[in-house]
Amino acid sequence: MNLKNFCDMPDKDIIKGFSRLGRREKLERASSFASDPGKAAEIAEKYRHHDTGVQKLHDGFSENTLTNFFMPYGVAPNFLVNGKVYMVPMVTEESSVVAAAARSAGFWSDRGGFIYETNDMLKNGHVHFLWTGSGELLQEVFPELREKLLAGIAPITANMEKRGGGIRAVSLEDMGHEIEGYYRIKGEFDTRDSMGANFINSCLEEFAAILEDFAGSDERMVSGGELKVIMSILSNYTDGCIVSVRAECDVEEMAPFSGGMPPGEFARKFVMAVRMAAVDVFRATTHNKGIFNGIDAVVIATGNDFRAVEAAGHAWAARSGRYSSLSGAHIEDGRFSLEMTLPLSVGTVGGMTGLHPMARLSLDMLGNPGAGELMGIIASAGLASNFAAVGALVTKGIQAGHMKMHLSNILGHFGATDDERAAAEKYFSGRKVGFAAVENFLTKLRGGGKPG
Amino acid sequence: MNLKNFCDMPDKDIIKGFSRLGRREKLERASSFASDPGKAAEIAEKYRHHDTGVQKLHDGFSENTLTNFFMPYGVAPNFLVNGKVYMVPMVTEESSVVAAAARSAGFWSDRGGFIYETNDMLKNGHVHFLWTGSGELLQEVFPELREKLLAGIAPITANMEKRGGGIRAVSLEDMGHEIEGYYRIKGEFDTRDSMGANFINSCLEEFAAILEDFAGSDERMVSGGELKVIMSILSNYTDGCIVSVRAECDVEEMAPFSGGMPPGEFARKFVMAVRMAAVDVFRATTHNKGIFNGIDAVVIATGNDFRAVEAAGHAWAARSGRYSSLSGAHIEDGRFSLEMTLPLSVGTVGGMTGLHPMARLSLDMLGNPGAGELMGIIASAGLASNFAAVGALVTKGIQAGHMKMHLSNILGHFGATDDERAAAEKYFSGRKVGFAAVENFLTKLRGGGKPG
Repeated sequence: MNLKNFCDMPDKDIIKGFSRLGRREKLERASSFASDPGKAAEIAEKYRHHDTGVQKLHDGFSENTLTNFFMPYGVAPNFLVNGKVYMVPMVTEESSVVAAAARSAGFWSDRGGFIYETNDMLKNGHVHFLWTGSGELLQEVFPELREKLLAGIAPITANMEKRGGGIRAVSLEDMGHEIEGYYRIKGEFDTRDSMGANFINSCLEEFAAILEDFAGSDERMVSGGELKVIMSILSNYTDGCIVSVRAECDVEEMAPFSGGMPPGEFARKFVMAVRMAAVDVFRATTHNKGIFNGIDAVVIATGNDFRAVEAAGHAWAARSGRYSSLSGAHIEDGRFSLEMTLPLSVGTVGGMTGLHPMARLSLDMLGNPGAGELMGIIASAGLASNFAAVGALVTKGIQAGHMKMHLSNILGHFGATDDERAAAEKYFSGRKVGFAAVENFLTKLRGGGKPG
Repeated sequence: MNLKNFCDMPDKDIIKGFSRLGRREKLERASSFASDPGKAAEIAEKYRHHDTGVQKLHDGFSENTLTNFFMPYGVAPNFLVNGKVYMVPMVTEESSVVAAAARSAGFWSDRGGFIYETNDMLKNGHVHFLWTGSGELLQEVFPELREKLLAGIAPITANMEKRGGGIRAVSLEDMGHEIEGYYRIKGEFDTRDSMGANFINSCLEEFAAILEDFAGSDERMVSGGELKVIMSILSNYTDGCIVSVRAECDVEEMAPFSGGMPPGEFARKFVMAVRMAAVDVFRATTHNKGIFNGIDAVVIATGNDFRAVEAAGHAWAARSGRYSSLSGAHIEDGRFSLEMTLPLSVGTVGGMTGLHPMARLSLDMLGNPGAGELMGIIASAGLASNFAAVGALVTKGIQAGHMKMHLSNILGHFGATDDERAAAEKYFSGRKVGFAAVENFLTKLRGGGKPG
């Protein structure tokens, strides 16, 4: 398709200065794109919080905010993680995710629960630059430059250092094997319980200014070549911020999850299913998607950034050169184990975590954990989801549960009463669930409804 | 860390039968984990919709639902996509995402907008099984088996076929190079405007039943070996459901986005920044994360599943064996172009898209597009985010904008008035923004506040 096909552009819908309009005016303009503008605006209004102060707070989190998108806020009880029981808040629009995590958590709570470990939890970022001179010269001046970099960011790091964090390493990386003259300065940061994005980016932008200043004033650099900073930015590939989680039990103890199958057969099928996810991208993608169903639900509930967590996890899943399963399952000496290791950068202070009332509530319900503890809880939720999903796949399949939820959602849409729900569940057991079929069923039921 | 360390498990917090409790009782139990149970329950209650019917609908989308998690629902105007102007609904908790997308869309709306193309939009899934017999025998019987498979799912596909969709291909794949005796039956499906997960999984589970029946009844199969189905499931690696999107303009037209830099220099820096994201995982991860900032915001707003979209996109980004940038940028004959190709499986009918009132509103505001059109809009939002992010990185950096939003959020938290906001913005221009610093500033301002 060629751009030229679109030369007679419609411009009636182009709105200049939209961001400067008031909310009501924005809503009016936005609603004019809907089939029934009045009704559209009405729906949006109805989703606003009745407390104008609270609503104002939420409006401020983003831009051109018209109203709120409701995501179900649920909980999965009985998460035993490193010996402590948690009520885990989960935010997801997908049915069965919370139920599956809860079922899995309950199972493992009787079997030692989930055990996690974290490492140093370092975040990283880079100043990316081009340098026309020799790499040797850069290496030669780098110790001196490093001192300047560290001194330059001291005012920024002072507060973080008071909290026990700060910058842990600064290094020069030669990326010339990829792009001629490409170098970068890497910073590694300990941001304690904060996600630390603002802190890291502020440090890196300061690094960039100091680097440019140095390149423009140091005699060796001035005569040695030309330096151009391309950008300065944290990396979401947080391979220094890793969590490992595992759960294990005797194979013979697995009966409650084996769907009537002998526990040994269930365990072997499970291990094979995970192995299949390790060797092929078609299965690995879906397998990991199921893990992130659990992870993201807690990431969102606690006010963290799920795009960052997803990007890091999936890129990590491809680190061998083949995109593969994040989890592994084994049977050894009659013990079944399921484990997973992945980068997981989250915070429990700063940003949304402290500003969104429901995120604050989530963290409070979790006992106000530090970042490392939250990593453990989130990874456990991911592993719990994985266990439930693979467990269902190798036994009864996933459709039985999904169709039940699907029916329930459609009944909700039609405002079914408890009696109608009971009748529908009976009718649709063994029948195909669909929107039209449920509507027909309810229409008939209501038309010929029982008295009273 | 060893499981044995955790043998004296606390069980006071383990709750049996939680899922069967009523919502109020669930909330009470969940709140008991918070530092102030009464207050926690009160906050949760306040986030419920005032209309009990609407709230009941939302409660039914997931399980153990206590209340709603508010995500800001905003819009980015002026998205010119394949010659049509859209008001794009975006749901994101991250500040600057909507503003950046809107700014980018506005820029491109004067330069031909975004142009997308889709392919056949086929989804896929597999029956994964082990077979101890010869692969030749499987190949030999497969044509016959395929007929049975297709006949068996006819009742399931009938409705989809009426809508122009259905099953497009069934094939046998020998995965023995990875795991001995591992085979799978692959189905390729056209699910029209629906995401189609339930449809595909229903077909695959039926396939599995037919396959097992065939293996247990066909004489050649019975005497040829043993067959065991491990699982049947769709794949989120939707490499048959691809969208390509691009935007291009004369380099000389780029001044409004070049932050004072000559347009040519800006364009060259931009292209270099994207190249850096192509060659290294640290930069690629963050680069793609920025793309998904835009993509996910529209995916969520339209009731689609962002975990599925993320998993497919990131796995696809690693398809060469090296996790790489999803977008590419080029300068040729004085023209700058930015393009991106990725799998993107979404629906505009069925599931949440039809049930969540705000998702319905989003689709209505977009003119009730088909799945292909929605893929184009979503990919455009992703490319717009990418353009804004890289554009900011190679010019003024991203901290300036972020700190402004950060200040605004903190002011919102403290319920700052418009006058207080103006004073704070003046005071903090050039000063470090932090929670404590803003609190101090407001305290002083309020303590010694001006009369009136």
